[in-house]
Amino acid sequence: VGLETIPPGEVHLGDDAAVLGSFDGAALISVDVAVYGVHLDADLFSLEDLGFKAVASALSDLAAMGARPRGAVVAVSSPPGTDLEALHHGIADAASSSSCAVVGGDLATSRDVSVAVTVVGECPEGSAVLRSGARAGDEILVTGPLGRSAAGLRLRRAGAGPDDQLVVAHRRPVARIDEGVAAREAGVHAMMDVSDGLGLDLHRLCDASGVGFELVHVPIAEGATFDEAAGGGEDYELLMVTDDAKRLRSVFEERQLRAPITIGRVHADGAVRTWNGASFERRGWQHQF
Amino acid sequence: VGLETIPPGEVHLGDDAAVLGSFDGAALISVDVAVYGVHLDADLFSLEDLGFKAVASALSDLAAMGARPRGAVVAVSSPPGTDLEALHHGIADAASSSSCAVVGGDLATSRDVSVAVTVVGECPEGSAVLRSGARAGDEILVTGPLGRSAAGLRLRRAGAGPDDQLVVAHRRPVARIDEGVAAREAGVHAMMDVSDGLGLDLHRLCDASGVGFELVHVPIAEGATFDEAAGGGEDYELLMVTDDAKRLRSVFEERQLRAPITIGRVHADGAVRTWNGASFERRGWQHQF
Repeated sequence: VGLETIPPGEVHLGDDAAVLGSFDGAALISVDVAVYGVHLDADLFSLEDLGFKAVASALSDLAAMGARPRGAVVAVSSPPGTDLEALHHGIADAASSSSCAVVGGDLATSRDVSVAVTVVGECPEGSAVLRSGARAGDEILVTGPLGRSAAGLRLRRAGAGPDDQLVVAHRRPVARIDEGVAAREAGVHAMMDVSDGLGLDLHRLCDASGVGFELVHVPIAEGATFDEAAGGGEDYELLMVTDDAKRLRSVFEERQLRAPITIGRVHADGAVRTWNGASFERRGWQHQF
Repeated sequence: VGLETIPPGEVHLGDDAAVLGSFDGAALISVDVAVYGVHLDADLFSLEDLGFKAVASALSDLAAMGARPRGAVVAVSSPPGTDLEALHHGIADAASSSSCAVVGGDLATSRDVSVAVTVVGECPEGSAVLRSGARAGDEILVTGPLGRSAAGLRLRRAGAGPDDQLVVAHRRPVARIDEGVAAREAGVHAMMDVSDGLGLDLHRLCDASGVGFELVHVPIAEGATFDEAAGGGEDYELLMVTDDAKRLRSVFEERQLRAPITIGRVHADGAVRTWNGASFERRGWQHQF
């Protein structure tokens, strides 16, 4: 398959299964599947972009738990003649940019290009950050301004080149692994990545925690609109909920990570879901399923 | 997604990633993708069969290393209207029959039904059985007679019902997890599952070990032909190579596993690949890739 980008000594390959070294803590696992033409416009973005996004999206699920990646495996279904090398480049780039080894893969024939990425990560036993830990009064923060990915898609559709900064944000998203680990170590109560948009994912986090929220600030990325920031997906910034934002900020500063942005507060009443006092409805990118 | 069949307490679900408990030994990971109409004839077999086979095939990769499964995640791409419940039943049946929890999944839209199954397993550190350990003079054994799956496919094509015993062998293969663990604990030198046929997989094992083989016996399952036994894939029996077949037999007997069948011996010369003295060429099921 040739999907190997492996730190020597860490894994054994070429057998029926790949052998990862032992785990110190809990093992985490997540899978994401991306289809060319469904999750990514095949006229505007390359197979390399598809591979990159599929891996980044899966890694973001580990980031959202405060885990570090240990390895990824990739299953590709595609028509004969598909440029698998381009796909592989994107996969390898995204994995190596997050220090994740690609340790296995499988290929099959199908009419569409479908890329399923499974990532395995690790964090100390009992420390994985769930969505369900938000408590009344907690502060809600996000790792960066939102809407870059949606703005990039809009610009690309309007004719911007692939190297436009916002277009790059759409086709080469970054999983916030270091930020997730920092947030976990700073003791955040709950965390989640913004993959389908703040207007969906904040609701989901609060649903899981049985709480409401009072949003006071939607940080809009430069070049993006409010709707893109509130409803656009695939920014993969992390939502973090904590009762000690000062500590969170200081851990991020020590590690030279971008300062987290406070966006609101957790409300005890699960029915309270407001933005500056007005109702903040669910909005965002709903996939077919 | 509804792909949850989880022993309580072992995993945490419903978050961005599933959390598995800690690992005592090495973690192993493997992925297999199956496409309806490519890996399984869509006119003769059900979506339930597709799900079952995809999981069994992935689990067999763990069995081949001597590992026990810890969890599986499943990514499905399929056209709108696909009977995902049937698919899920097959997935859940195969997983639970090997005591494997399905801990996560993802769904996407595509024209073909493509099922990517990733399994994570565990075995004591440094004990995973590789393909590369066969040594000159070692005995080669297999966990059962071969050709059942290929015979079942032939019979189904000829009009046999889905409940015919050989047809069941084709659509509901069993990953030999207990046999793989027993073989590892009995100290076999090398192991591999027969997924693409003896005529390919024995060559691959010997390629990895840099050795040859003298095959003396191809065990043909009842109802199968020699060609099906020698070249048919998807039986998922295990090839085992050991210098202590007596111990292997006795461990299998203690655990009430079917007695392994001796099929030949490892030859020091990698160019020697014979069946009863004649050349035994590569043959078997080659997939598109």
